[in-house]
Amino acid sequence: MHDDHERIGFEEDAAVVVRDGRVEAVTSAAEAAGRAARERIDARGQVAMPGLVNCHTHAPMVALRGVAEDLPTEEWFNDVVWPIESNLTGKDVELGARLACAEMIRAGVTCFADHYFAMDAVAAVVDACGMRAHLGEAFFSSQGPQGREKSLEFALRHRGGAGGRITTTLAPHAPYTVDDADLAATAALALEHGLPVHIHASENRDQADTSLARHGRTPIDVLAATGLLDTDLLIAHGTGILDRDLPVLERATGRIAVASAPRGYLKFAWPDTTPVRALYDIGVPVGLATDGAASNNSLDVWESMALTALVQKSTQGDPRWLTSRQALHHATVQSARAVGLGEELGRIAPGRRADIILVDLTGPHTQPVHDLAATLVHSARSADVRTTIVDGRILMRDRELLTLDVPAVVRELGERLPALLDRSHGRRIQQYDA
Amino acid sequence: MHDDHERIGFEEDAAVVVRDGRVEAVTSAAEAAGRAARERIDARGQVAMPGLVNCHTHAPMVALRGVAEDLPTEEWFNDVVWPIESNLTGKDVELGARLACAEMIRAGVTCFADHYFAMDAVAAVVDACGMRAHLGEAFFSSQGPQGREKSLEFALRHRGGAGGRITTTLAPHAPYTVDDADLAATAALALEHGLPVHIHASENRDQADTSLARHGRTPIDVLAATGLLDTDLLIAHGTGILDRDLPVLERATGRIAVASAPRGYLKFAWPDTTPVRALYDIGVPVGLATDGAASNNSLDVWESMALTALVQKSTQGDPRWLTSRQALHHATVQSARAVGLGEELGRIAPGRRADIILVDLTGPHTQPVHDLAATLVHSARSADVRTTIVDGRILMRDRELLTLDVPAVVRELGERLPALLDRSHGRRIQQYDA
Repeated sequence: MHDDHERIGFEEDAAVVVRDGRVEAVTSAAEAAGRAARERIDARGQVAMPGLVNCHTHAPMVALRGVAEDLPTEEWFNDVVWPIESNLTGKDVELGARLACAEMIRAGVTCFADHYFAMDAVAAVVDACGMRAHLGEAFFSSQGPQGREKSLEFALRHRGGAGGRITTTLAPHAPYTVDDADLAATAALALEHGLPVHIHASENRDQADTSLARHGRTPIDVLAATGLLDTDLLIAHGTGILDRDLPVLERATGRIAVASAPRGYLKFAWPDTTPVRALYDIGVPVGLATDGAASNNSLDVWESMALTALVQKSTQGDPRWLTSRQALHHATVQSARAVGLGEELGRIAPGRRADIILVDLTGPHTQPVHDLAATLVHSARSADVRTTIVDGRILMRDRELLTLDVPAVVRELGERLPALLDRSHGRRIQQYDA
Repeated sequence: MHDDHERIGFEEDAAVVVRDGRVEAVTSAAEAAGRAARERIDARGQVAMPGLVNCHTHAPMVALRGVAEDLPTEEWFNDVVWPIESNLTGKDVELGARLACAEMIRAGVTCFADHYFAMDAVAAVVDACGMRAHLGEAFFSSQGPQGREKSLEFALRHRGGAGGRITTTLAPHAPYTVDDADLAATAALALEHGLPVHIHASENRDQADTSLARHGRTPIDVLAATGLLDTDLLIAHGTGILDRDLPVLERATGRIAVASAPRGYLKFAWPDTTPVRALYDIGVPVGLATDGAASNNSLDVWESMALTALVQKSTQGDPRWLTSRQALHHATVQSARAVGLGEELGRIAPGRRADIILVDLTGPHTQPVHDLAATLVHSARSADVRTTIVDGRILMRDRELLTLDVPAVVRELGERLPALLDRSHGRRIQQYDA
C-alpha cells in the first residue's frame, strides 16, 4: 500500500480480502480469520504486493530469445530480427505468447503492454491464461493505410475483452517507420475513439540525432507536431529524450508515460538510459518494462526494477537517488499509470483489481530483513514469487502454473523454429536506418 | 568444458563420472549407464557446469543486509558498517557465515574467497557445510603488529583444512588502512610461507586520486613498492585502476588477479567499474564476486556474471565485447585462477575437483535455447541451479539444502541483531577517509 509520494507503506500481519475480482478490504489476519471465505491462502513469511506490470514488451519474441546476441542495434534489426519476422505466422505468435505468459506469471507479472503483429493470437492467449494485458497491433507506414486501419480495428474489437482484462491501444511502430501523416491520422483516431497510443520513440540518442539532422526535429517534436502528445501516449524507451524535449513533454495535454527496459540499453551499449530523474521532475511517470526477449533475453520485470535502481544511481552519480521505495513506486503506481490503469492497479487497496503476488522472503538470500523495500528490490528475485493472482483468480500457486502447459508449448514451438528462423529468402519486414 | 581462449565448449548427452571427489571421466550417457555407481543423478533438461566461485566477499556481512542503503561509500563505512562491526562477536560471524553459505550453495556457488574478522568461525562453518573456501583474516595497521601476526597464524593453521577444501591467504585490508611497512612485511611473509595475499586496492577512483594527491603514488604503485606484486595477489574491485597502473601490473612477477563485484559499484554510484578489457589485454584474470551483502544485498554470483556482461558492454560502448562465452570464462576459468585454484577448478574435466552445479533450463524463461551460452548468462538465474556438488558431495539436491538449517540460523541470528546493530556507543573499528 502506498500513496503518490514514494512513501511506500507496508502492513504486518495483514490479510487481503478479495471478492468478485477486486480487493474488498485490507484487514488484520485475526479479523479475516472470522470471515467466511471460499478459499484462504496462508502466506506467512511472504509479502503481498501488487502484481508487476510489464509496460512494454513484444511477448511472442520469446521465440527468438538468444538468436541475435552481441550485435549493434542496426545489425540486430536488419540482419536477424526483421528477416526472421518476415516468416512470422499467427501460430508462431500464439505459441510465443503462451510461453511468454508462462514466463511472466512465474515472474510475478500480472499485466503486460504488448506491441506486436498478429495480435488476435495474443488476445486469445490472454483470454485463456487469465493475465491482464494492454494490447496494440503494430504497424509501419510501409503497409499503407491498411496498417493503421488494422491497428484501429484490433483496438476497437478487443477493447474490454477477456472479461475486461484486455485494454487496447493504437500501435504505430515509431516515428522513423511511420510517417507524419500516418502519425497525425493515428492521433486523430485516438481522440475520436478514446484510445491510447503506444509507440517507440527516441529509443536511443542515435535516433534523436538522426531525426535532428534529417528533419531538424527530435522524435519528441514529431510526436508533438502530429498531435500524439494530445493523446494518452505510452512511449517505449525514450533513452534519446534530450533536454530540449522536456518542456515539450511537460506541455503535453495528453497523459504521457515512458516505459523503461534498462537491461537492453546496457546490452546494446546505448550511451544513455531512460532519463528517469528528468521525467520525474516534469511529472511524467516511468513504468518498468523488459522489451522483447530477443533483445532482453527475459521478461523478468523484477530484474528491470533492480536494474532501474542500480543504473539510475550510477548514471546520476548519486547513491541517494532511486531508493528502493522509489523503485517500488515505479513498479507499482507508475507502471499502472503507464498502461492507463492508474485507478485500477498499482496498490492493494479496497476497490482495486485483485492483481496480487505473494513473495516468499524466507530464503537465505532475503534474510534477515532490516529494510523491507531494500529486501524486495535488491535481494529478492522473480523466482521468489510463489503465487500470482489476477482479478482474484490464482494463475500460479506455489510456483505451479495453473493455466498454461509449458512442456507442450516448448515442444510445439520447437517444431516450428526451423521455418521461423530461416533467413535464406533475403526478405525483411522493414529496414532500420534511424 | 573449455580451453583458455574463451572458446567455451558444451557437450550434449554427456555424463560426468565422479570418484573420490574428482572428475574421473566425462563420457556419454550411454557409456555411463553401463558403469557401476554408488549414486546416479538424472539431470536431463539440465546443464552441468563448474560451480561458481565468489572471488571476493565478506560472507558474515549477510547479517547487515539492508542496514546501510542508498548511502555514499564514506557514510556507509563511517556511519553504519564500521560502528556496527565494532560489536561483532565470533558467534555473529558464525551465524552470518552459515546463512551466507546457505545462500551461496542455493545460488550455485561452490567456493568463496572470504576476507573478514573472527575467521576461525568461518573456517568451522566451511568445514561443516561442505563448501570450498579461500580464507583470510583481515587486519588494519591500527591493530599494531598483532593484526598481521594473527592473519599469518590463521593462514598457516587453516591451510589445507576441511579435507583440503580450505586454502588460505594473508589479508591486509587495503593500502589506505594498512601502512607501507605492514604491507612490505606481509609481502615478505607471503613469500616466506608460500601464501597468497588478498587485499582491497584502488577500489574506486577517489581512492586512486586521494593516494596520488597525498603520496604521489596510486594504490597499485603502493602494492608494487611494498613487494605485494611479487606475491600471488588477489585485488578486490580495482575500479580505480588507472591507465598508468597497467604497465605496473603487467610487470608484476607474482600471479595477479582482480575480483569484480559490479553490482555494488552501480549502487554506490562509483564513476567506474573494473577495467576488465584493459586487464584482459595485459593478461590479468578477472574473477567474479559479490562483495559483502551489506553493500551488494546478495551473494548472487550468477547476477554478477550477467551484470559483468551488461556493464562491460555499456561502459565500453561495444555490444560485441564481453560475449556470453567470455562471461562464462570469467565465471569459471578466470575465477578459479583468481583464487589460486586454476589447476583444480573451473572446468569439468578428468582430474579436476568435482565442484559441479546442475542448472535446469526447462523453465519458460530459458526456452527455447538458440544459444546455450546466452541462455545461461542472460536468461537463467541462480534459482535455476537445482543441485550443487563440492568435492563430489551433494550439498543441495533439487533445491533442498542438505548441510545447513536456514530457519534455525535465521532464528538464532535474529535474537542477536539488536546487540549487533547498536551504534549508541559511538565506536567504529576504523575511519574511512580514502
